[in-house]
Amino acid sequence: MIKAQTKYLTRHMAIAFGISVVAMNLAYADEQKAATKAPIKNAAKPSMQDVLKASKASDWRPLDPQNTLYLEMDKGRVVIELVPEFAPKNIENIKKLVREGYFDGLAMIRSQDNYVAQWGDADEKREFKTAAKTVDGEFTVKYSAKSAFTRLPDHDGYAPQVGHAKGFAAGRDPKSRTTWLAHCYGAIGVARGNETNSGNGSSLYAVTGHAPRNLDRNITVVGKVMQGMELLSTLPRGTGALGFYEKAEERTPIKSVRIAADVPEAERSKLEVFRTDTASFQALVEAQRNRGGEWYKFAANHIELCNVPVPVRTVK
Amino acid sequence: MIKAQTKYLTRHMAIAFGISVVAMNLAYADEQKAATKAPIKNAAKPSMQDVLKASKASDWRPLDPQNTLYLEMDKGRVVIELVPEFAPKNIENIKKLVREGYFDGLAMIRSQDNYVAQWGDADEKREFKTAAKTVDGEFTVKYSAKSAFTRLPDHDGYAPQVGHAKGFAAGRDPKSRTTWLAHCYGAIGVARGNETNSGNGSSLYAVTGHAPRNLDRNITVVGKVMQGMELLSTLPRGTGALGFYEKAEERTPIKSVRIAADVPEAERSKLEVFRTDTASFQALVEAQRNRGGEWYKFAANHIELCNVPVPVRTVK
Repeated sequence: MIKAQTKYLTRHMAIAFGISVVAMNLAYADEQKAATKAPIKNAAKPSMQDVLKASKASDWRPLDPQNTLYLEMDKGRVVIELVPEFAPKNIENIKKLVREGYFDGLAMIRSQDNYVAQWGDADEKREFKTAAKTVDGEFTVKYSAKSAFTRLPDHDGYAPQVGHAKGFAAGRDPKSRTTWLAHCYGAIGVARGNETNSGNGSSLYAVTGHAPRNLDRNITVVGKVMQGMELLSTLPRGTGALGFYEKAEERTPIKSVRIAADVPEAERSKLEVFRTDTASFQALVEAQRNRGGEWYKFAANHIELCNVPVPVRTVK
Repeated sequence: MIKAQTKYLTRHMAIAFGISVVAMNLAYADEQKAATKAPIKNAAKPSMQDVLKASKASDWRPLDPQNTLYLEMDKGRVVIELVPEFAPKNIENIKKLVREGYFDGLAMIRSQDNYVAQWGDADEKREFKTAAKTVDGEFTVKYSAKSAFTRLPDHDGYAPQVGHAKGFAAGRDPKSRTTWLAHCYGAIGVARGNETNSGNGSSLYAVTGHAPRNLDRNITVVGKVMQGMELLSTLPRGTGALGFYEKAEERTPIKSVRIAADVPEAERSKLEVFRTDTASFQALVEAQRNRGGEWYKFAANHIELCNVPVPVRTVK
């Protein structure tokens, strides 16, 4: 069955994409109407697994070692990729903190169910050596005509346009020509106080629940967890306000945070991420928007930004 | 500060609601335009906490003991409320299974990161005594003109209409006059195979990640976790396909599942849920749609169905 579908996918890929682009535009204009259609039987069509199976080496990209963090805990490593195009100043400061050893020996300080896990210095006493104490918030950045953006045709309530840039879920506002990383599951943000420049990267959080998109454009998002998300999402929830841990012994220690480029190559996590600027990615999105196979009885004809998977694989 | 805002809320509640209804309708018609507005300073306006603080006893409802399940594990109790209006046959069968003691001594069989935790009989050998083996899927149910529905004005990509019915997040299709419970965080569904009647309630799942709304209208949703969600969301992730546990010892045991009405009153969890058919609920939704306070710099002017909180409180 899967084999047959893969064959179908390979043979009809160009045609299938042609159809899906038309179908998606129709869906965009007439989504409400489409959503009221009677349940339909899904035809045999490629699943996400079929798309991944048929993918070529060029559909994948390696992580950038200069912008990849390894957060090491007793139970394992969390791999985070940073996206300097979206938050250059904050990411520069985070990298300074990492290279200072700022995070080594600190801990998870907060885990709020269906929201975020956050780490840093619970006592806020550790000194900064080279890093800045205040960094301007980079809640949105300007984009230019040549900025690549794989736009989703699907309506989004939180942004005029949504899609993927540099491989990450993002929003765009064509009027102000600004763009920002979206608070999807696994997104990494820079905790801050009321002042927009009060974040400096010394306390970071990962989204561990349903996307709090209300945070978009209100805080600096710097990247996303690429592996080891379960180490953050299964942390015991804190019992204090906002999920902060009330006692020091409840905090899961951080052994170290390192930049991948600073780690010997043999110790690096060998990961590849599915590119978001390819025809294969379009096929993957369509496979998730209207799922094939025998199980699905009703086609959603829609996909929400944070429901779009961007697969990661381990390579040798 | 909070006190002042609470006073404001109480004095201006009627006016504030009048404004919010107009504002919400405008937002619905002209959402894209609104979303491109420059960041705005939020005026001092009531927060969700203010709304809850100002709430009256009549803004809350008790759980229905006849339709509340206690799932007991070593670490504590998960409280689930069932909604018979949305899945009468499946809920009847689940209650039969519970009263047979079907779940007692079974276990969590699956935990997939950012998706679901599922429980039941890993070996599928346990006998049914009074419960049916197959139950028709109740993926949607008909609604009538008198069915109460607190509609959200916000656009939704997965359903023609969304809002709350009987206190639960739901979708509606006015064309077919059908309604269904939405797969928001904490939603409880009836696992099934490819056949629509292959679910019977002996294996249930809770949504533990970003809402998989693509499941809506494809599977029977019976209710929602009202307390103890962290006991499910922090379960170790299974390493098998789809997050199934590969070894028996990885499965967290279920001590028992009971219907609250069958449990002595002194042992019941005394909970109340915020009603969704009140003016106070409208105020809460608006407080979350456009958040007040000093922290928020950009008003979303939108709230997605699964981002609407339905608060639960413990009472004496």
